[in-house]
Amino acid sequence: MTTSLSDLDTGRISVEAIREAANVLYGVVTRTPLLENIDVNARLGGRLLIKAEHAQRTGAFKIRGAYNRLRFMTLEERRRGTITYSSGNHAQGLALAAQLLKTSALIVMPADVPPAKMESTKALGARVITFNRDDSDSNEVVSRLKEETGRIIVPPSGDVRILAGAGTAALELFQQSQDVDATLDAVLVPCGGGGLTAATAFLMHELSPGTRVFAVEPERFDDTRRSLEAGERVSNPKGQKTICDSIMTPTPNEHTFEINRRLLAGGLTASDDDVRIAMRFAYERFKIVVEPGAAVGIAAILNGQIDITGKTIGLFTTGGNVDPHRYCQLLMSSDELS
Amino acid sequence: MTTSLSDLDTGRISVEAIREAANVLYGVVTRTPLLENIDVNARLGGRLLIKAEHAQRTGAFKIRGAYNRLRFMTLEERRRGTITYSSGNHAQGLALAAQLLKTSALIVMPADVPPAKMESTKALGARVITFNRDDSDSNEVVSRLKEETGRIIVPPSGDVRILAGAGTAALELFQQSQDVDATLDAVLVPCGGGGLTAATAFLMHELSPGTRVFAVEPERFDDTRRSLEAGERVSNPKGQKTICDSIMTPTPNEHTFEINRRLLAGGLTASDDDVRIAMRFAYERFKIVVEPGAAVGIAAILNGQIDITGKTIGLFTTGGNVDPHRYCQLLMSSDELS
Repeated sequence: MTTSLSDLDTGRISVEAIREAANVLYGVVTRTPLLENIDVNARLGGRLLIKAEHAQRTGAFKIRGAYNRLRFMTLEERRRGTITYSSGNHAQGLALAAQLLKTSALIVMPADVPPAKMESTKALGARVITFNRDDSDSNEVVSRLKEETGRIIVPPSGDVRILAGAGTAALELFQQSQDVDATLDAVLVPCGGGGLTAATAFLMHELSPGTRVFAVEPERFDDTRRSLEAGERVSNPKGQKTICDSIMTPTPNEHTFEINRRLLAGGLTASDDDVRIAMRFAYERFKIVVEPGAAVGIAAILNGQIDITGKTIGLFTTGGNVDPHRYCQLLMSSDELS
Repeated sequence: MTTSLSDLDTGRISVEAIREAANVLYGVVTRTPLLENIDVNARLGGRLLIKAEHAQRTGAFKIRGAYNRLRFMTLEERRRGTITYSSGNHAQGLALAAQLLKTSALIVMPADVPPAKMESTKALGARVITFNRDDSDSNEVVSRLKEETGRIIVPPSGDVRILAGAGTAALELFQQSQDVDATLDAVLVPCGGGGLTAATAFLMHELSPGTRVFAVEPERFDDTRRSLEAGERVSNPKGQKTICDSIMTPTPNEHTFEINRRLLAGGLTASDDDVRIAMRFAYERFKIVVEPGAAVGIAAILNGQIDITGKTIGLFTTGGNVDPHRYCQLLMSSDELS
């Protein structure tokens, strides 16, 4: 997602904005549980805390940011409605936020997204327009439709109100880890455009400066990791594939990268096979259904990219929107691995 | 499970015994989360609270009772070890408790249990002996082996220390429902031998007398429901089948039924198809993996046997021990239903 997509609020993210968003979101979103498993900890030799945003309303953390953005819309703007580009999770979050706040949502979606995500988005009352990921530029499609309709663009990240909303997930992770007497050595964040990553990096920097925050990306879609190394935003080549549909973004968002560049401890990656193993691990050990893109944090621990020995590591399982057929395919294909 | 299986402690269950067990189990078992979903509540027109014991250590609530029983063993008894009959979940709970408390476990298991349960039991260090559910009487097998080995019988229910351990799950449900400002109108308990059911009925009677507690059983294995109606223990005919392997007990336990007879509000049932729909619902709405026998509570709400409209209903998802192949079969076969 690049900036041309967003009506950016140039304000800076703040702990106060995140706390205010948390108050507004109370009773609107689920306070998802923090999961911990004694036997997993024993096996890993460290403490693993999973912030279960896969069980959030609409099946992903995205509702937090979308709702916190839309609540600032004027009545006139609400009549015009909203528009965004999304591969599915942001779409559903926006669709529900629009429904709750009495406005409308038009979603530009890649034609190859999992059918369940498209259906769920429509079921939440949004209009969906599809385009081909490799042929067209999502920015152009959205910009054209914005001109035609006068709708307000609600980007998946890169808007300070959306970051503040996403930051409420990090705030809960921080509070819930305190509730179980844990001091987070590191937090792993599945990273697409980088909004949740930036919000988490910011919040930990302010409230828990000893906590290192890492972006985790699929192999071949590690634009944030490579951008961190290059010191500037670099893109992924087109035409690559990954099973992690929810975080296959082409380039870091300009504004989230500005935060991530300063505050992240680094970037980690997971292969598709790593992700299959992680999904199976989530099934067997935590009895949770996690979508591929949301399992990269677990994958980065299991594949050894970060050492949990003697440490406490928190991570987000950011989404659970995977339809049963695909889920079972992925679960079964993990049989030959590990 | 009939009484011949158990070295019964004739003491009575008490809130104090449950609270003491909770103290002992602190840090030994997981304080499983209480799950709630705003959209599910809106759809059902009431408040549904799921006590997620499917994510307990060894994948079922059984570790609570087993550990609380074994901690009372003398050193001499621990040298002799333990023995039980179990279709899988109690077996794994006992195996882990035996490991933690430095004794051993011998498990008599029906030959037709899901392979994952047998493997997991062995992986926890227990010895497993199988028998044919329809040909032999599990009591006889266990009694003979007890004579031969001198092991202590640890029944799945019908021992006051095991009930007190199981009651800690009900205590947590009660406390966690208070944390979210909920007053439980009813609690639904998947019911096999009736231990968790009795412990829950007792605890709610003492701490929350306005809460009605129901046993939920598979169709054709509704021995507790029919026993409640008959006023005495009746058995299920042999040779019946259900997908709910974890709660296909032949007869209510004598001692748990004595409690259940006095304190239960009634019995509910779920067909295999109801259970498939409930497992799919758990997957889609809560992103959780629940085994068939643990989904009967959800099933009894979805099939309309209990009306949740305007009410708050708590239930236990008692186990998550279902291997991926079988889980996916069940999930896919729900496609033609609902």
